[in-house]
Amino acid sequence: MWPTIGRVTPVDVTPPLLQALAGKHPATKPVWFMRQAGRSLPEYREVRRGTGMIESCLMPDLAAEITLQPVRRHKVDAAIFFSDIMVPLTLAGVDVDIVAGVGPVVAEPVRTASDVRKLVAHELGDTSMITAAIERIRAELATTPSGDASWTPLIGFAGAPFTLAAYLVEGRPSRDHLAARSMMLSDPESWDALMAWCADLSGAFLTVQVDAGASAVQLFDSWAGSLRLPDYTERVAPWSQRALAAVEGRVPRLHFGTGTGHLLEQMAQGADAVGVDYRTPLDEAAARLPGVPLQGNIDPARLLAGWEALEPHALDVIRRGTAAPGHVVNLGHGVPPETDPEILTRLVDLVHTS
Amino acid sequence: MWPTIGRVTPVDVTPPLLQALAGKHPATKPVWFMRQAGRSLPEYREVRRGTGMIESCLMPDLAAEITLQPVRRHKVDAAIFFSDIMVPLTLAGVDVDIVAGVGPVVAEPVRTASDVRKLVAHELGDTSMITAAIERIRAELATTPSGDASWTPLIGFAGAPFTLAAYLVEGRPSRDHLAARSMMLSDPESWDALMAWCADLSGAFLTVQVDAGASAVQLFDSWAGSLRLPDYTERVAPWSQRALAAVEGRVPRLHFGTGTGHLLEQMAQGADAVGVDYRTPLDEAAARLPGVPLQGNIDPARLLAGWEALEPHALDVIRRGTAAPGHVVNLGHGVPPETDPEILTRLVDLVHTS
Repeated sequence: MWPTIGRVTPVDVTPPLLQALAGKHPATKPVWFMRQAGRSLPEYREVRRGTGMIESCLMPDLAAEITLQPVRRHKVDAAIFFSDIMVPLTLAGVDVDIVAGVGPVVAEPVRTASDVRKLVAHELGDTSMITAAIERIRAELATTPSGDASWTPLIGFAGAPFTLAAYLVEGRPSRDHLAARSMMLSDPESWDALMAWCADLSGAFLTVQVDAGASAVQLFDSWAGSLRLPDYTERVAPWSQRALAAVEGRVPRLHFGTGTGHLLEQMAQGADAVGVDYRTPLDEAAARLPGVPLQGNIDPARLLAGWEALEPHALDVIRRGTAAPGHVVNLGHGVPPETDPEILTRLVDLVHTS
Repeated sequence: MWPTIGRVTPVDVTPPLLQALAGKHPATKPVWFMRQAGRSLPEYREVRRGTGMIESCLMPDLAAEITLQPVRRHKVDAAIFFSDIMVPLTLAGVDVDIVAGVGPVVAEPVRTASDVRKLVAHELGDTSMITAAIERIRAELATTPSGDASWTPLIGFAGAPFTLAAYLVEGRPSRDHLAARSMMLSDPESWDALMAWCADLSGAFLTVQVDAGASAVQLFDSWAGSLRLPDYTERVAPWSQRALAAVEGRVPRLHFGTGTGHLLEQMAQGADAVGVDYRTPLDEAAARLPGVPLQGNIDPARLLAGWEALEPHALDVIRRGTAAPGHVVNLGHGVPPETDPEILTRLVDLVHTS
């Protein structure tokens, strides 16, 4: 510890993202955007042309390039590994595809106890392309400054077990996840087997990324918002905790879900920081989660509505975020594909100078 | 007022639904189900065969038959008028269709100020088929007992202005309604013109139903859950209140939305009762909305999970509902099409005998 009186306090050269996730308020506020590596960038659309989504995630040079594009362009304080919730399923030999205009489609939905038994025989296979991509990303990030630090961290990424299970059971995106939620209630044994497999898959995928050099991870639960709190607490949260436990003590672990305002206390269990959907004000989240660093939560609709609508809202988010012990500025959901990238760059400047 | 000591208290022959909506606890708890008139019933699938959704809503004999089917089968305490959120748009001459596997599709999405100006020139046209359907329904319900009453009430129905506007702007169902929400933020003048038109359309459609004999109405906001509270309060709630005001003082007005746990206080404004999504426990809703009768909120996933999963959950909902000044038992979202109708009949019996 360095007393501040009578001496010059040394600058903390830990990147601002990692300071905030450790519960500090760095001199420069860290900011990155969920889905910053994606369709909002013309350079992304250019390199993705003719290559399918999952295929792109499995090509080390391409995945590395896409991961780095928004860091170069926007000067964000973190790279997020370019991947997809479905990638670990593919690597485990499950037949999934991303269908344009639909989303992830599972060739053989998992509906019965027998389907679950067949599924859980699958194991995460070769992940060398993930390791290779991350090594390339780290090489460039090692010399890319973030705040006062000489390097920028990479965040690893995996879908949470419930979101994986919801896709596996429904076979495609759905609004209420009734098939998955009714399996959870009517056949808890199969449900637990399915969730244990999904949790271990997510945990293994995060571990591969941390082994290769990711400095933090985010577990993303797209669909947990469809659950009642008691069902989430009993039938889902323990499995998310199991996935997060795979990298416990190695890197800070962010846990994020959409429409999960009613689940925040549970989502904080087993995580080091919580990402907050745009519908829950950060000061309210901070009051409910004492001691927990927060991430979020600019409404993505404001990115499409122009700077006049965005600026006061972003400043309000930053102000409310000071109630948390550490705050990583981000959106409260992903970057919409229609976003003008220039507004994102301007938003990064605003966060860094505010 | 009738003192209960030393006299026989006369039975209140007001139907239990209307007692509960007036803030009383009738001897028999009222129950009905959102989407009770629909695909869960074989007799519905039979009469709908070969007839499109909106077309069915506009055929008085068919709409009346479909509305009455669940009352006959399940002995529920209310009929809900068989209609669709898109029907008033069709009656106003807007080109919309319900596409299988997609949902409502608007031929010419409303994206610009000029689009809005063109749209608001439309007026609700001939509604005689709605009036005719309701007259047929009322004739049968007049002799269908509900609790101690000799008749069963009909609930009228309309989509809330935001849900109509979201479909009109997006052109089809979406998850986050980014196009609609960004128009709301970037062009408030066009937004207000659009919402005023939607509110008046919904209000007029409710009025037609009340004029024809509906005993209550429900304004249904499918998509309001995507909004932050400040945006809902400033840019949406006043228009829902305007729609509800069209039948103020004539019948009790229910206001329901999905994923709207963060908006309940606002949704209670201008309504006589609030429908609660399955994710907010009714005792919590009752504490937040003192004096407001509530409706809900059995999780539809429990209908698919079998009686063992459903019964304790339904009894818990009923118990929590006693915290409200009046409680109409219902689901916390619509009946899933895959529901076994026998489990619904059994659930009605459980509610009536609990």
